[in-house]
Amino acid sequence: MTEPGVPTAILGASGYIGQHFARLLGDHPEFGRPRLITSERSEGRTLADVWQLAEAPPGSLADRRLEAASPAALARSGVRLVFSALPSGTAGTIESELVRRGVSVFTNASDHRMDARVPLMVPEVNPGHLALAARRPRGHGLLVADPNCSAAGLVLALAPIVPRLRPKAVHVTTYQALSGAGYPGVPSLAIADNVVPFIGGEEEKVARESARMLGTLRGSSVVPTKVPFVVHCARVGTREGHLEAVTVETTARPSRDDLEDAWRAFDPLAGRSLPTSPHPPIEVRREPDRPQPIRDRWAGHPARARGMAAVVGRIRWEPPYLRFFVLSHNAVRGGAGGSVLNAELALREGLLDRGARR
Amino acid sequence: MTEPGVPTAILGASGYIGQHFARLLGDHPEFGRPRLITSERSEGRTLADVWQLAEAPPGSLADRRLEAASPAALARSGVRLVFSALPSGTAGTIESELVRRGVSVFTNASDHRMDARVPLMVPEVNPGHLALAARRPRGHGLLVADPNCSAAGLVLALAPIVPRLRPKAVHVTTYQALSGAGYPGVPSLAIADNVVPFIGGEEEKVARESARMLGTLRGSSVVPTKVPFVVHCARVGTREGHLEAVTVETTARPSRDDLEDAWRAFDPLAGRSLPTSPHPPIEVRREPDRPQPIRDRWAGHPARARGMAAVVGRIRWEPPYLRFFVLSHNAVRGGAGGSVLNAELALREGLLDRGARR
Amino acid sequence: MTEPGVPTAILGASGYIGQHFARLLGDHPEFGRPRLITSERSEGRTLADVWQLAEAPPGSLADRRLEAASPAALARSGVRLVFSALPSGTAGTIESELVRRGVSVFTNASDHRMDARVPLMVPEVNPGHLALAARRPRGHGLLVADPNCSAAGLVLALAPIVPRLRPKAVHVTTYQALSGAGYPGVPSLAIADNVVPFIGGEEEKVARESARMLGTLRGSSVVPTKVPFVVHCARVGTREGHLEAVTVETTARPSRDDLEDAWRAFDPLAGRSLPTSPHPPIEVRREPDRPQPIRDRWAGHPARARGMAAVVGRIRWEPPYLRFFVLSHNAVRGGAGGSVLNAELALREGLLDRGARR
Amino acid sequence: MTEPGVPTAILGASGYIGQHFARLLGDHPEFGRPRLITSERSEGRTLADVWQLAEAPPGSLADRRLEAASPAALARSGVRLVFSALPSGTAGTIESELVRRGVSVFTNASDHRMDARVPLMVPEVNPGHLALAARRPRGHGLLVADPNCSAAGLVLALAPIVPRLRPKAVHVTTYQALSGAGYPGVPSLAIADNVVPFIGGEEEKVARESARMLGTLRGSSVVPTKVPFVVHCARVGTREGHLEAVTVETTARPSRDDLEDAWRAFDPLAGRSLPTSPHPPIEVRREPDRPQPIRDRWAGHPARARGMAAVVGRIRWEPPYLRFFVLSHNAVRGGAGGSVLNAELALREGLLDRGARR
Repeated sequence: MTEPGVPTAILGASGYIGQHFARLLGDHPEFGRPRLITSERSEGRTLADVWQLAEAPPGSLADRRLEAASPAALARSGVRLVFSALPSGTAGTIESELVRRGVSVFTNASDHRMDARVPLMVPEVNPGHLALAARRPRGHGLLVADPNCSAAGLVLALAPIVPRLRPKAVHVTTYQALSGAGYPGVPSLAIADNVVPFIGGEEEKVARESARMLGTLRGSSVVPTKVPFVVHCARVGTREGHLEAVTVETTARPSRDDLEDAWRAFDPLAGRSLPTSPHPPIEVRREPDRPQPIRDRWAGHPARARGMAAVVGRIRWEPPYLRFFVLSHNAVRGGAGGSVLNAELALREGLLDRGARR
Repeated sequence: MTEPGVPTAILGASGYIGQHFARLLGDHPEFGRPRLITSERSEGRTLADVWQLAEAPPGSLADRRLEAASPAALARSGVRLVFSALPSGTAGTIESELVRRGVSVFTNASDHRMDARVPLMVPEVNPGHLALAARRPRGHGLLVADPNCSAAGLVLALAPIVPRLRPKAVHVTTYQALSGAGYPGVPSLAIADNVVPFIGGEEEKVARESARMLGTLRGSSVVPTKVPFVVHCARVGTREGHLEAVTVETTARPSRDDLEDAWRAFDPLAGRSLPTSPHPPIEVRREPDRPQPIRDRWAGHPARARGMAAVVGRIRWEPPYLRFFVLSHNAVRGGAGGSVLNAELALREGLLDRGARR
Repeated sequence: MTEPGVPTAILGASGYIGQHFARLLGDHPEFGRPRLITSERSEGRTLADVWQLAEAPPGSLADRRLEAASPAALARSGVRLVFSALPSGTAGTIESELVRRGVSVFTNASDHRMDARVPLMVPEVNPGHLALAARRPRGHGLLVADPNCSAAGLVLALAPIVPRLRPKAVHVTTYQALSGAGYPGVPSLAIADNVVPFIGGEEEKVARESARMLGTLRGSSVVPTKVPFVVHCARVGTREGHLEAVTVETTARPSRDDLEDAWRAFDPLAGRSLPTSPHPPIEVRREPDRPQPIRDRWAGHPARARGMAAVVGRIRWEPPYLRFFVLSHNAVRGGAGGSVLNAELALREGLLDRGARR
Repeated sequence: MTEPGVPTAILGASGYIGQHFARLLGDHPEFGRPRLITSERSEGRTLADVWQLAEAPPGSLADRRLEAASPAALARSGVRLVFSALPSGTAGTIESELVRRGVSVFTNASDHRMDARVPLMVPEVNPGHLALAARRPRGHGLLVADPNCSAAGLVLALAPIVPRLRPKAVHVTTYQALSGAGYPGVPSLAIADNVVPFIGGEEEKVARESARMLGTLRGSSVVPTKVPFVVHCARVGTREGHLEAVTVETTARPSRDDLEDAWRAFDPLAGRSLPTSPHPPIEVRREPDRPQPIRDRWAGHPARARGMAAVVGRIRWEPPYLRFFVLSHNAVRGGAGGSVLNAELALREGLLDRGARR
């Protein structure tokens, strides 16, 4: 089977994030139609058989069969690019082996996010961190992580304003959607008519990953920002789209217009022609009651970048406190889409082996 | 430990129906405080540790520890009465062994419901079927089943009117609550903003169990009614309370008042003083928009019988079609409460061994 | 303002169905960009200001201002085609006046649905009924009604199989979405964790409108089918997409394959090139648990026909009872889209005045 | 009609909070069975006719008819005690007139909450503020306000720990239930599968009312605390029970045990025998995922005080930030129950005219 584009596979293709990867890669202009790797239990079923998303599976992949394959077999078969939707915990060793075998891995799992050599990245926020991966051993693939689904939208919203605000602290409280827990995830009886004020390990991830992404590259490592992130995480009964209430305690006193302008003007990937990149990456809404999950979860232009924009609204600026809400799609910007965009940037930067076409 | 009442245990005490059994038996006037039997995985945890219901666990059992115990060990220890909330499929053999060892079993599992010798019973509807169990081998315990959670409310609503209507067919379409699938049960992503028009095996159970309960005892077996039950089952996003749309195609033409009177006058257990028996067992509502899960799921007086009444409403009688809705609590009348009431009747009928007090 | 296409207006443009009309007509290839007519209360606001749908407003209409305008003023200004999303009750007289003034009206309101001279139509089901409107007085516009939102999907699903089944009765029980009641519609406290087994007038509408659409044109009137429709209607907590459980009591005994083939082969508008017409209009699913609102509400190809297909599944054929579920989008196939398709057919049939281009 | 207890009326008895007043006052040991005052539109209907709560109406009031009555007529008829559930905006002048006519008013409306002479009160938190009302003109009734539904649970949770923490700032983010908006309140389409990050005026109310209640009585007025409250309010799709994520930025460093002990030991009304007073008023939960609306909304002992306790959990103490969640029932502790408890305290303090028994 010869296919155009970088030879690609999705690990964990039958899961919720795996299916979002499939949705985004079914007709990607630069990456090949992905092989769909899964556990032996699902082997042989088609993507359509296991499909869980509300949207239909991509026509180009609906009938493709799920395969079980070892890292060694994948590497041997010529796959050069892997998107990992493996569960955190089991992802780490498999990803490391792939990298050693020369395959580049863009992962949504948390295992390697805090590794000193691994860029933890949102391309609009800290593209320079990609340099960490450039120093890898000869013959190794890249290993690049996208952040926790709540941290992704948060740092995107913070990136343009942090330089103007010189924060003392960032307070974040989340309203996280069901799909953040994957499938089967949260039992319906646990959440119907309810809010669950606990998601294991989430508050710590949001705090340390955000601090790292807003940190500074010094030589071969990242020094996290010292601004404390004070975080509460809770699950609500929405399907998709994480909403976050953010308060920044500031030392500087820019005008409100300066802040809005900073958000609206922010588009550091303009001109890079990354297929999954939204322009603008931040949409600012002035209605009194936005952003909302049902209306804003799919924000992002052009069509390929739907779900990749963060939507900021309800800006209240009463120094020293700036308050706002931000919403982003947990499984797109905060999941599969984030890794696809990371890979697009790496390809544009010449860091990604295009593979021998077979 | 010496406790008053019949020595009792709950099998599958950590599950959703098991917890409803615990809620009902924490201070039962005739049955002892139950031992809480579960799989080895949960052994040693307290009931409070595993509690999943919205209502608080009963004070008398909250700190009681879950135990793993074989049928043999239970029988040896003097337990005379078991309420089984085991999953269908594994329940059958365990229940049979208990019965052989002289323990009486009242089960919510479906394994034995269609056995010729096992009474499948709603006490107000077919108490006479208890005679099937009376003919059991010497030394054996009773084995009595309660029906499928949708069938329970249905036959209760049908019992008073069937003799007046002489039905040609009964059409039933359900709106079943999440808790009908137990815990964890239905994944939230499968049901949020959704209806799932399928519950495995449910339509068949409603049809054949209803036909059996409305059937006739002939000698040592039950001849099911020949009236066909035409059933659709679907899951909706409510927590508790199965709603059912019922159409009876009739041959007789009673007046509407006759029908309402039949429902309102129905109380065959009046005067039996069964603790969990609701009076009346059927509540008829005249508001245009009742019954509803949030308002009617806990119907039933006195307090101990909350959730045991079926609520009938929206009666539309345009011969030959009688249409109405009925609602009953799937985990109480259609689950744990049904079996407790079966046991109370058996005790009153002298069929239940009270056990040696220890 | 000169615009291409038939000069068009939407009445009741600020309501839920009105907004679905705007969504469908923002870039319609044959009808002009519509004027947005509303009550004086909303006059002057833009469509974006009042927008309630989860999807974004069409770019071509987002900034268009709502106008108040009398029927006389609309007719004088050259509007030739009106889509009415007025509330039933007030719609009737306004629609009649427009028609007398030569404007053609395609209405979602119920006021005129049972008028002898008004075609009540689903184009794939009873296109011949359009002949009723052809006989209108000289100078009058057309008046064509689309049916109740539950009846639309129902008759679409029944049309191909009724000739093969020769039904004795049709039993229908609905699971209707919140948007069927418009905006603000159902209070959240009335439906959260609940099902409401009552929608005023709905059961009667489904019965009589379905019987009319499946009836026979005799001279200048329609003789409804004599098959009784036995209907239960209930509201569930889904946003969009009415699900219906259907049982057909039959006299004929086609094979199951015949029935499936009849559904799959059904496409009477094939080749007519109506822009909003889905091909096929009925999608048959074989998964055990479909159709479902979240997955199937937007069924329909090509893109312009999203939400116009009915999805049939869970086919159970045990003569004399055929059971299945059908789902269709209440606000598209069962609302705005139905009327747009009616108008497209009328235009193709040469019944619609294209108006003088201004 | 002679009834025992203080002659009492509920204003706005047909609304959501009004019905909670009725629920609490149907058999109150000290206050008379209330007259049910409403607008002329509902006059003559029974309480049962207009009932909206999931719980059944109190038997003693179900058949009582709603009346329209002016303040003057109420005062003349001998009513001494009024509970006001009138909408904010219209409540103020009516309440003022009642007070001038010698009737004591305990109000849930916001109109008078910030009046210098009106105690804004949660009895466990600032009972001393009642002194403000003691200084009223001769012949006037008392006027006592309960706070905003989110502020009530918040100050209850803060009261025991503020002295130990000496806060620099309090950050609060809410997950507010649907019933906070009354009936019909939030349209279902606005909230199904959604979160709305805006409730008009709410953030300001929480901030200024909390600061007032935690303030200091100086002579005849209250000096609010200077600690800033930084607040985000959002509506989620739960029926009842407001959840709040709270972060206290502190200067002091008590141990975690000190904090928990402070919460657990807090019971300033112990020994006062107020019928609706919960003991303890704060329940501290150690499970990792509590408090939750479905499990904790009805916290409070004894039975009459159900829904009156605040539940605190997920305590994370990493100086200088203390984080926790608190949940309280918005319509009970944060609504009708709060005013009933205020009135019970006033009665016990001898400030409430018992009225001539008629």
